[in-house]
Amino acid sequence: MCPIDGDDCVNENFEELRTRLSEIGDIGSSIALLYWDQSTYMPEGSAMARGRQLGTLSKMAHKMFIDPEIGELLENNRVLEDNNPYDSFEASFIRVTKRDYDKATKIPPEFTAKLSMHNTEMNQAWVKARPADDFSMVQPYLEKTVVYSREMADFFPGYEHIADPLIDLADYGMKASNIRKLFAELREELVPVVKKITELEPVDDSFLCQPYDKDKQLEFSKAIAKDIGYDFATGREDMSPHPFTISLSIHDVRITTRIDPNDPRDCIFSTIHEAGHGMYEQGIDPEFERTSLAGGASSGVHESQSRLWENIVGRSLGFWKFYYPKLQEEFPEQLGNVPLDAYYKAVNKVQKSLIRTDADEVTYNLHVMLRFDLELDMLEGKLAIADLANEWRRRFEADMGVSVPDDKDGVLQDIHWYHGMIGGQFQGYTLGNIMGAQFYETALKAHPEIPGQIELGKFDTLHSWLKNQIYQHGRKFTANEIVENVTGKPLTIEPYMKYLKEKYGDIYGITL
Amino acid sequence: MCPIDGDDCVNENFEELRTRLSEIGDIGSSIALLYWDQSTYMPEGSAMARGRQLGTLSKMAHKMFIDPEIGELLENNRVLEDNNPYDSFEASFIRVTKRDYDKATKIPPEFTAKLSMHNTEMNQAWVKARPADDFSMVQPYLEKTVVYSREMADFFPGYEHIADPLIDLADYGMKASNIRKLFAELREELVPVVKKITELEPVDDSFLCQPYDKDKQLEFSKAIAKDIGYDFATGREDMSPHPFTISLSIHDVRITTRIDPNDPRDCIFSTIHEAGHGMYEQGIDPEFERTSLAGGASSGVHESQSRLWENIVGRSLGFWKFYYPKLQEEFPEQLGNVPLDAYYKAVNKVQKSLIRTDADEVTYNLHVMLRFDLELDMLEGKLAIADLANEWRRRFEADMGVSVPDDKDGVLQDIHWYHGMIGGQFQGYTLGNIMGAQFYETALKAHPEIPGQIELGKFDTLHSWLKNQIYQHGRKFTANEIVENVTGKPLTIEPYMKYLKEKYGDIYGITL
Repeated sequence: MCPIDGDDCVNENFEELRTRLSEIGDIGSSIALLYWDQSTYMPEGSAMARGRQLGTLSKMAHKMFIDPEIGELLENNRVLEDNNPYDSFEASFIRVTKRDYDKATKIPPEFTAKLSMHNTEMNQAWVKARPADDFSMVQPYLEKTVVYSREMADFFPGYEHIADPLIDLADYGMKASNIRKLFAELREELVPVVKKITELEPVDDSFLCQPYDKDKQLEFSKAIAKDIGYDFATGREDMSPHPFTISLSIHDVRITTRIDPNDPRDCIFSTIHEAGHGMYEQGIDPEFERTSLAGGASSGVHESQSRLWENIVGRSLGFWKFYYPKLQEEFPEQLGNVPLDAYYKAVNKVQKSLIRTDADEVTYNLHVMLRFDLELDMLEGKLAIADLANEWRRRFEADMGVSVPDDKDGVLQDIHWYHGMIGGQFQGYTLGNIMGAQFYETALKAHPEIPGQIELGKFDTLHSWLKNQIYQHGRKFTANEIVENVTGKPLTIEPYMKYLKEKYGDIYGITL
Repeated sequence: MCPIDGDDCVNENFEELRTRLSEIGDIGSSIALLYWDQSTYMPEGSAMARGRQLGTLSKMAHKMFIDPEIGELLENNRVLEDNNPYDSFEASFIRVTKRDYDKATKIPPEFTAKLSMHNTEMNQAWVKARPADDFSMVQPYLEKTVVYSREMADFFPGYEHIADPLIDLADYGMKASNIRKLFAELREELVPVVKKITELEPVDDSFLCQPYDKDKQLEFSKAIAKDIGYDFATGREDMSPHPFTISLSIHDVRITTRIDPNDPRDCIFSTIHEAGHGMYEQGIDPEFERTSLAGGASSGVHESQSRLWENIVGRSLGFWKFYYPKLQEEFPEQLGNVPLDAYYKAVNKVQKSLIRTDADEVTYNLHVMLRFDLELDMLEGKLAIADLANEWRRRFEADMGVSVPDDKDGVLQDIHWYHGMIGGQFQGYTLGNIMGAQFYETALKAHPEIPGQIELGKFDTLHSWLKNQIYQHGRKFTANEIVENVTGKPLTIEPYMKYLKEKYGDIYGITL
């Protein structure tokens, strides 16, 4: 490191910092590949070895990052933050890295290692507990998870709510109090909408529930992903039990999907969803490669893109005006006699259902908010893990008016609590829905031609606008900054509720 | 580290050493995954990023390994080598790790990083140069490679021949002088055999040169791999332009193959070849996981297994007595009227051909020895890279009596020189052929029932014998030790030439 002050010295310190962080980034890429492989191609016999490999590399990256010399280099480069515009590469790089460093240095590596081991064991227990429908198999692990989650929060003293530090890790700048307020508003608006729709005659989607050739499903879905702008030259799509997106580099962003041989919706909409995540990561300024700025701004902003493409675009009537004839051509036996309107209604069927990931746009957020509320209660100590499964049933029935027949499709359904912390894991999904609608409303104001283009299978204008406004900036801005910068307003549920009411009012022929 | 002497102290030092090497092993596994992915599924746009990731991890593993504290720990554990039998885990672990450490500490990490980057760039150039048939595109890289290869050799001063340190990295204990002697003997025996056979009427293999369904080819090949003992629970087979085997762990050993839609031989024999490598790695004592003992003894011993399974077993008449009716069942149109004898001759067709990897057992070694000789000449400075392509043609024509129409199928055909060093890259193939025959002769002496079992599709006796004699020991013994221990003799070409003369004498109905 450079001992004297001056421009050359700053440059030298900056290069040294970049080099070190680049190398840590390369380890991060390797970790991403280990995860991707674990979920796609890894032979079953290799599970324990993979756990150790992931543990070793994670510990190493953490140790390298919290080295006090990184702290000194950041300190020595403070001038770059002070003397450059807020949105410049230099200032942003120092600001975001410093934020990451401050967080990382508060978490002891031994804790990371302990948590990583615990998560591996808990996940193995959950993989057995869910098919066995036996919550007791995970209960002791989950009790430990609450302890660890509280311990994690306590590494960041001074919080308003104990969930805040955990929320902050996923959605920087957000707090339990703001989210609670936003979610309360949303719930108040949503519940009557759900009630009105679910009292009507259910939509017929039986023609979608029959055999559809798997290869054709995949090819069709991939063609859509390519059309909307996901780049297969710097990406690929594979199969995995739970679809996900992972970035190994701005030039290597991979998505996965799954195929239900008796329903084409799973593959098509999982693919569009993950392609949305993927386009975000692929759209980051390539100059950010191997820096702290390479990544999405927050869990909510990321989800805003996957759900904007999946739902607002991918489940719109205009989108299927273009694609449905092609889908009919691929599956003439199943869809040849089904009119577009019936298909459009079927892919937007609203129903009270048990599983979050299968839920429609309207009920989806009730699933998310249930989990968010339970997380806060568990962290506050109001809700014991021993009571969690029953409390899940009770609240789910109250919210949804559907009784939960078992834990398998109840409290055991999502992987999240069984491979990570309790707290901060779910709010991003609903924040993303809200943000996505707010972004899209702004896009339409700037480019009213977008819906017409979608009907022609053209997505360039929307994609370029999102790339310019959001993707290219990576982690330069916080979620709140992005919402304000892009839409000129703070986050609000208005565009989202307007979107839902108009769309579903049309579909069901009622006023919502 | 433990400051005082005594048993507890040795134990503590031993545990510390194992932990450190385990972590380095985990990085090694991650590097293996990065390579595997690069050759199978990586999006094309990610090549440069992958090069950097490999460079960073290689440098890091190297740096961690050559840490002087590892040297001290090895020194502190010397007593384990002295006080335990040569073939004990403890003594072997210390001995082999020390050997690796002594080598690794001689190579500066900056050199490793530089070489790794160079290899990535050179490989990208070769990927374009080969289809373009343009040697000039790789020439400047190759010139640098010779410089680097000589530099590498010079990190190990005191050699007899400049290729010796490079040969030693792949085939520990071997030297240019011994190999030259062995190869000279082999050439003397082989040349008249090749001459005699290639003067005869060529075998008809036209029925193999027609469309064969790709999926069926792959399924058939995988079934054979499973039958002979390759374990898919701790392995998998994928497609890659150049078939290879890679170990991420003793419990995760992957093979690849390729499929020629107009010839089933490529897929079948590449699969058996790689399965042989894979069975070796899968057969290593699981206790060796994450230690220096987990791996094959040498390039030659490894190749002895791939080629023993591919050729001695997989191209034998007995093997096809069992599998040919099954192959006919899969491809009745192509093979229904072709008798076993014709098929057996076709998969053992001897011909003067351009491509090493397509060569038959008899001419194969002439291809290898050509490359070995060229490597020595380049390293000695006798042969300039500018003259390499022409010198290749000249010598190839002299050896094989076939003129080389282009560089694509000449000097540009093999990946080796274009992603690694010049020197030490080829001798293992022919050493493996020689060793394989010597091992198999010994196996038959111990178990004369093996050929009869092969005719029934049973491979357990041979597989178990090889596992006991060779695979389980990993890197415990050197290649020379293994040959002596297993066969009771030093390496000799006799069994190999006997095998070739008998087999091909029978096929061609002549005395060789």
